[in-house]
Amino acid sequence: MINLKILITSGGTTEKIDDVRMITNISTGKLGSLIASEFYNQEKNIEIIYICSKNAIVPHIPNLRIIKISSVFDLQQNLTDILSNEKIDAVIHAMAVSDYSVKKVLTAEILTKNIIEKIKQSNTNDIDILKKDILEVIILANDYLSSSSKINSDLDNLMLVMNKTPKIISIIKILQPSTILVAFKLLNKVEKDILIETAYKLLLKNNCDFVLANDLVNVNYENHLGFLVNSDKTYEQYNTKKDIAKAISFSVLKKIKEKNKGE
Amino acid sequence: MINLKILITSGGTTEKIDDVRMITNISTGKLGSLIASEFYNQEKNIEIIYICSKNAIVPHIPNLRIIKISSVFDLQQNLTDILSNEKIDAVIHAMAVSDYSVKKVLTAEILTKNIIEKIKQSNTNDIDILKKDILEVIILANDYLSSSSKINSDLDNLMLVMNKTPKIISIIKILQPSTILVAFKLLNKVEKDILIETAYKLLLKNNCDFVLANDLVNVNYENHLGFLVNSDKTYEQYNTKKDIAKAISFSVLKKIKEKNKGE
Repeated sequence: MINLKILITSGGTTEKIDDVRMITNISTGKLGSLIASEFYNQEKNIEIIYICSKNAIVPHIPNLRIIKISSVFDLQQNLTDILSNEKIDAVIHAMAVSDYSVKKVLTAEILTKNIIEKIKQSNTNDIDILKKDILEVIILANDYLSSSSKINSDLDNLMLVMNKTPKIISIIKILQPSTILVAFKLLNKVEKDILIETAYKLLLKNNCDFVLANDLVNVNYENHLGFLVNSDKTYEQYNTKKDIAKAISFSVLKKIKEKNKGE
Repeated sequence: MINLKILITSGGTTEKIDDVRMITNISTGKLGSLIASEFYNQEKNIEIIYICSKNAIVPHIPNLRIIKISSVFDLQQNLTDILSNEKIDAVIHAMAVSDYSVKKVLTAEILTKNIIEKIKQSNTNDIDILKKDILEVIILANDYLSSSSKINSDLDNLMLVMNKTPKIISIIKILQPSTILVAFKLLNKVEKDILIETAYKLLLKNNCDFVLANDLVNVNYENHLGFLVNSDKTYEQYNTKKDIAKAISFSVLKKIKEKNKGE
């Protein structure tokens, strides 16, 4: 009998530049896959929904539902659908979600032409107006790609203008307030205090139960230094992906059981 | 006894944006892997050097030397090294090489500020001078990332300015004029005549022996419409990756044997 349902996001999202090119990230899904396996090791009556990128490492365990996605938009749609329709005991949001998607593609030459036209048009000496105008041109300039779906391979000074993507972590507790939520914070070359502080801010902001804080300089294929930050800002340190996976599944299962006892 | 040495490039290159983000492409290495296998099927006395991306599909055949690379620069270095030091009977350059690498990262706000400063500085009403100035600012603007190695996840109107990468195909026959060279041309939604014409131009320009011409709309995981264009501009049509792989290895082996007989 299955009585627990855990949702794990794993790997990294991919944002299209055109029909052949894309922006992605270094995440392999190894940690997400280990977390799934550790949940199963510790609790057999469990179903795992594993939302991952197409190339992500997948766990080999029973009662696994794998959903492969590409973009942040795909992820958002799938998460919204699941969290709106199924009771999920915990969400482990380990996926590296792209902070940016490609808004448009242009070249320095096209952009310059657009700026010059705007300067001629507005015909002003007021620097503040000019500043506003130029910023607007950069943000609103036509997409060179609008007429094609593969960028010519021979353009000088190609430019990509990016959009911020929605913060996926923020929708999880809104859609299902009762779920246990584990988020991840990856920084690069910061002091440990700053890392913990930033992770804790993320925890508070998104109503997380735990945040795994890690620094890129201390992550490689073999070793992985991580701090599992609790909702009271205490934390424990782990040194390998496997130990992080064990700690997350242990802490989440403990919290679920405490909660179910209280109900 | 090994008496033939074939170099195959396969998969797609990856260009870093920062320490976690990168630009890559949809190539899986499936066709390159099939080509390697077909060479071995048709000729056992063969060594294959397989230069591929980290995630690429790799063939399972004997006498295989796998070299994993990431960027166009890595590819160029490895190719140059091999072609300068070893006799290679044929190069099958199936890898999807990024046409662009990331030159710098900035935001629309930073760029606007730089343009305004330049306009103030040059203090001119001459549109041509202004145009030259603005273009220069866009191309030479400081890299926002220079002080960091991971882009902040919360920037408005992030912009990537790209550089053209060197055309790897052009160095192969320069480094080793006697090798047989097969190039690939992938276009998107063009007439067949234009596809063949473009492939033939590539063949002439880079002194290729064959070019495999294909259109993205006719390529999927199962089927793959390809035209193998010869040096006299005749071509044959194939409908699957397997048939393309067979035809390339057959044509190349035939040409090597004719050549060796002539020597």
